[in-house]
Amino acid sequence: MKIMVLGADGYLGWPTALHLSKKGHEVAVVDNCVRRSYDLEMGVDSLVPIASFQRRIQAWKEVSGIELTSWFGDLTDPDFVHRIVREFRPEAIVHFAEQRSAPYSMIDQKHCVYTQVNNVVNTLNVVYAIADIDPDIHLVKLGTMGEYGTPNIDIEEGYIEITHKGRTDTLPYPKQPHSFYHLSKVHDSHNIQFACRVWGIRATDLNQGVVYGQETPETIEHPDLLTRYDYDGVFGTVLNRFVAQAVAGLPLTVYGTGGQTRGTLDVRDTLACIELACMNPANQGEFRVFNQFTESFSVLQFAEMVRDAYNKPVEIQHGELVRVEKEDHYYNAIHTRLLDLGLQPHLLNKDTLEKMLAMTEKYAHRIDPAAFKATVNWRNTTNYLPTSGSPLPR
Amino acid sequence: MKIMVLGADGYLGWPTALHLSKKGHEVAVVDNCVRRSYDLEMGVDSLVPIASFQRRIQAWKEVSGIELTSWFGDLTDPDFVHRIVREFRPEAIVHFAEQRSAPYSMIDQKHCVYTQVNNVVNTLNVVYAIADIDPDIHLVKLGTMGEYGTPNIDIEEGYIEITHKGRTDTLPYPKQPHSFYHLSKVHDSHNIQFACRVWGIRATDLNQGVVYGQETPETIEHPDLLTRYDYDGVFGTVLNRFVAQAVAGLPLTVYGTGGQTRGTLDVRDTLACIELACMNPANQGEFRVFNQFTESFSVLQFAEMVRDAYNKPVEIQHGELVRVEKEDHYYNAIHTRLLDLGLQPHLLNKDTLEKMLAMTEKYAHRIDPAAFKATVNWRNTTNYLPTSGSPLPR
Repeated sequence: MKIMVLGADGYLGWPTALHLSKKGHEVAVVDNCVRRSYDLEMGVDSLVPIASFQRRIQAWKEVSGIELTSWFGDLTDPDFVHRIVREFRPEAIVHFAEQRSAPYSMIDQKHCVYTQVNNVVNTLNVVYAIADIDPDIHLVKLGTMGEYGTPNIDIEEGYIEITHKGRTDTLPYPKQPHSFYHLSKVHDSHNIQFACRVWGIRATDLNQGVVYGQETPETIEHPDLLTRYDYDGVFGTVLNRFVAQAVAGLPLTVYGTGGQTRGTLDVRDTLACIELACMNPANQGEFRVFNQFTESFSVLQFAEMVRDAYNKPVEIQHGELVRVEKEDHYYNAIHTRLLDLGLQPHLLNKDTLEKMLAMTEKYAHRIDPAAFKATVNWRNTTNYLPTSGSPLPR
Repeated sequence: MKIMVLGADGYLGWPTALHLSKKGHEVAVVDNCVRRSYDLEMGVDSLVPIASFQRRIQAWKEVSGIELTSWFGDLTDPDFVHRIVREFRPEAIVHFAEQRSAPYSMIDQKHCVYTQVNNVVNTLNVVYAIADIDPDIHLVKLGTMGEYGTPNIDIEEGYIEITHKGRTDTLPYPKQPHSFYHLSKVHDSHNIQFACRVWGIRATDLNQGVVYGQETPETIEHPDLLTRYDYDGVFGTVLNRFVAQAVAGLPLTVYGTGGQTRGTLDVRDTLACIELACMNPANQGEFRVFNQFTESFSVLQFAEMVRDAYNKPVEIQHGELVRVEKEDHYYNAIHTRLLDLGLQPHLLNKDTLEKMLAMTEKYAHRIDPAAFKATVNWRNTTNYLPTSGSPLPR
């Protein structure tokens, strides 16, 4: 089918585009490469060197013989979004194109407002383009498990049946997100759900867990096809960061007790989930929610697994909790709908961890130990990062 | 106490500022008068002529001897918001300053994005200013009953206790808003609730019903103190519009069956509720929600009450439903918390309606029959209004 991937230059967008292309879909890739400018701002870089967006597309043509349709542009520009949707006329739009770091959104007021405006406006523009041009286009939107927070009841997939004072209704699952970034995804979910109701568009909201891993069958076919791997304190996801700390011979830093439990999945499962969602579209007018993760672990468990998988000594160190979150909480999130569609999970085992450690060792010389630091504290309204363009203290 | 009213040039902001001033509070008023520019864009005007923001402030000084502190400025400018909060150092900030028309937000993509960005960024800027300058400042934020939609269970005040698979938690009440405007208020609520959690600020979210009426004890003291009265299809609230249609000798237009039920309140009760919220602040870190209305009626009931109160013949006409909403639904919304604080409601009776009709008759010569038209249909992604700056058909 014809699939447009928005944010196709990112950690997950790029391997998703290749996976869909390899599977025989006709793929368009769209990005403005703003993710790379966040690196410039933070003074950090992907552990794995990555080719330019243009070179990647060229390399895929050399390796596979397939030419991806591509656009460089900013999705906050409504005319740009309308133009590319009208020209490519996708059957599905996979939307990764958002500022996706919780700490980045919590740096200061400027980064908070940027994150919310960028993400909400991007998504509104995509929704309007679909409704205007072809309401049959299926929107596959990346949400996050962080939209739910940590309620003291089971987390369902998007909706919950509530019986209250003798009456019953099925309502959107209440949201208690963890950061201004997670809030932007909550806002998106509400906006898209409304658009499904009033315009009959079809959408799948994929509330994704924390992704780990870097290699996929397609990206390892050529060095210029590799996707980025972030280990820094602002963009690195927890398991990827622990692996890099272990390889750098540094203690794995667990903030607080590490009792915070999160859903997680292998990068290869992200790709499979996206394709499953595309191949099994939501109904007309349906706002469908899948919880996209395969297992749950506490942060401390992640650290212990990395320690146990590595063939060198690894220390685990507890640091001050920089986020505002519960460290000891109930967590049971349902995630059966993607399994029902046929997802075959790659569960986190020693073999996967050893491969991640081996890949990281190849690039160990590129690790900047200063990048691990958790520089953003949720309790500060302004975190004065040397390179973040934060305002001077008022 | 020291109270800053944001959006103090509007329908409710202005009489609220006067009411608080009359009660002995030290009041600052802030607006950029953008509400008046929506009138210019739509080619409509308040039924009651209103003095300029500057002249109103002067007139209040002449009448009461009290000088309001005032600023003209845009709350999407973060430096402006920080400056005024730092200079005035209020104990409470009453925040009315949002684009507040559902039809306006549904005109087209530009108006949708404008509404969400304006309202969300305004509110984030206010929240950051409070957290930075003095987290003790109590934010009294105008929300809307429309955030809840029409669930098939009782609507509680902001939170609901849910028992699910044998476990229980009290969670934010699920939201199913009716328009991109209502969605912007849902986004605000989530953002503010998060800020209370991470920074310990105190906030009251007033989920207000549909307000009717125009005269308050303070505004009738001088013609230059009168507040606006909107009867047009985009900004006019339903009862105000019906009263103007009756006086104009036109049929009261009920869209659909008129079975849509909404909470409502007298403009004088808005003023009382705001003062009660200010005088009884939320606790540190508390995100408190009050449902601010006094009675519920269906749209058809409003029409029938106006017909029955008027001394001239009035016809009720049903038109095509232009919004996407349920016409026949369960509606029972709890609203006891403001009553518990001492609210003495003005219930909707014949006397109130007769006064509204008499006031409207005074200005009958200013009614533009064309303004009544419901020009915005929810099902269109673009409503081509002659004067709305809508894009040309693509």
